[in-house]
Amino acid sequence: MPDSTTTLADLRSVVADFVAERDWAQFHNAKDLAVSICIEAAELLEEFQWHDAAQVTAVSSDPEARERARLELADILVYCLCLSNALAIDVSQAVQDKLAIAGRKYPADVYYGLARKPGQIEA
Amino acid sequence: MPDSTTTLADLRSVVADFVAERDWAQFHNAKDLAVSICIEAAELLEEFQWHDAAQVTAVSSDPEARERARLELADILVYCLCLSNALAIDVSQAVQDKLAIAGRKYPADVYYGLARKPGQIEA
Amino acid sequence: MPDSTTTLADLRSVVADFVAERDWAQFHNAKDLAVSICIEAAELLEEFQWHDAAQVTAVSSDPEARERARLELADILVYCLCLSNALAIDVSQAVQDKLAIAGRKYPADVYYGLARKPGQIEA
Amino acid sequence: MPDSTTTLADLRSVVADFVAERDWAQFHNAKDLAVSICIEAAELLEEFQWHDAAQVTAVSSDPEARERARLELADILVYCLCLSNALAIDVSQAVQDKLAIAGRKYPADVYYGLARKPGQIEA
Repeated sequence: MPDSTTTLADLRSVVADFVAERDWAQFHNAKDLAVSICIEAAELLEEFQWHDAAQVTAVSSDPEARERARLELADILVYCLCLSNALAIDVSQAVQDKLAIAGRKYPADVYYGLARKPGQIEA
Repeated sequence: MPDSTTTLADLRSVVADFVAERDWAQFHNAKDLAVSICIEAAELLEEFQWHDAAQVTAVSSDPEARERARLELADILVYCLCLSNALAIDVSQAVQDKLAIAGRKYPADVYYGLARKPGQIEA
Repeated sequence: MPDSTTTLADLRSVVADFVAERDWAQFHNAKDLAVSICIEAAELLEEFQWHDAAQVTAVSSDPEARERARLELADILVYCLCLSNALAIDVSQAVQDKLAIAGRKYPADVYYGLARKPGQIEA
Repeated sequence: MPDSTTTLADLRSVVADFVAERDWAQFHNAKDLAVSICIEAAELLEEFQWHDAAQVTAVSSDPEARERARLELADILVYCLCLSNALAIDVSQAVQDKLAIAGRKYPADVYYGLARKPGQIEA
């Protein structure tokens, strides 16, 4: 099930099944899921703690470091999909809606290659 | 493009196009993306700050609060997909690999409805 | 050196000495310190992950859980004091200035025992 | 009340008084305080989002940027002191205990100017 053929609904189902097999949906209120997303986000960040620019680039080509980052990213995504399941949020629609908002705030012709906070997407 | 028909590759492309239209990939090193995921995760958590259990549940049925949470979740996902693009990580594979690891750590028959840290997925 | 006799300058010195003995001030730019504060804050939060209200209260009376929380709090404070040293910020003054701002935003007579976000101090 | 003459007990009292004047201690359970520390830590980090090394250094000499960072740091400290009050933690002792642990893990002669994760204090 690679990204090319897996739908968001498929991936949400995989996560929902894992949770259902353990009867854990009872614990998955939105606040505790947001707490868990925060904790996992910080664990991902820890992979780059104290790294200068060269060390950050090196993570991509170091198989072990890249693998740790890959699995930390997965943790965040798992809890994000748990939250989308808990709140019945269509993830694809949410991302597209948010990019539409961000696109109006940061028009491509004005922000091309340049921004007060370059690279910032959130509106 | 709802979750039922959108593949992860589709959604990653939507995000990649947004970034390319602004020539922002140059800013998207893994560390700064991890920083941004952290910041957005905290903004999602802020929607539930000081909320007791009843107030957390109420977010689901309050259209404005739910919409804010939906768009904060989208911010996190956008940066997660930016990171998957920057590091060429197959998101579907990463999630399945992580759930396999977590499944061995938390066997369904042992952790059914119960855990020292109930509901915890990350290994 | 308990809180009753230790000044903020004393505690900042203790931290500065620890850093100087390792020649680590060279790594202590404000961004990486802020990253570290974030990571440590999430580790403190992890002590309460998935805890309901009763379990949170129980942490205070469980010596091991309380000790873990105490040392996680210390990690956050150490990095906060590193940042105050790096940016030459008078911590006592900063706290008092911020409480003055918060006090104007949340007057005691209006917010007594009540707030849209009860307990929130930051302005 | 500058750092040179303010004890930790003094500063904890200032924060406790602010909380008592609003009857907010009832909301200050350890989990919600940890959540708030996390949120404020991310707001501090946001001041350095997307900043390269030169831009981080520039924050120190830009009065407005430095002031924003100073007040974000204060928010984190306020909630840390609330937590120390809620759990009756002697902050000075906790910091010294944690540095003793970190000092054994990172001996000065081994880690002088160098570390796998340079600058890391937490054990």
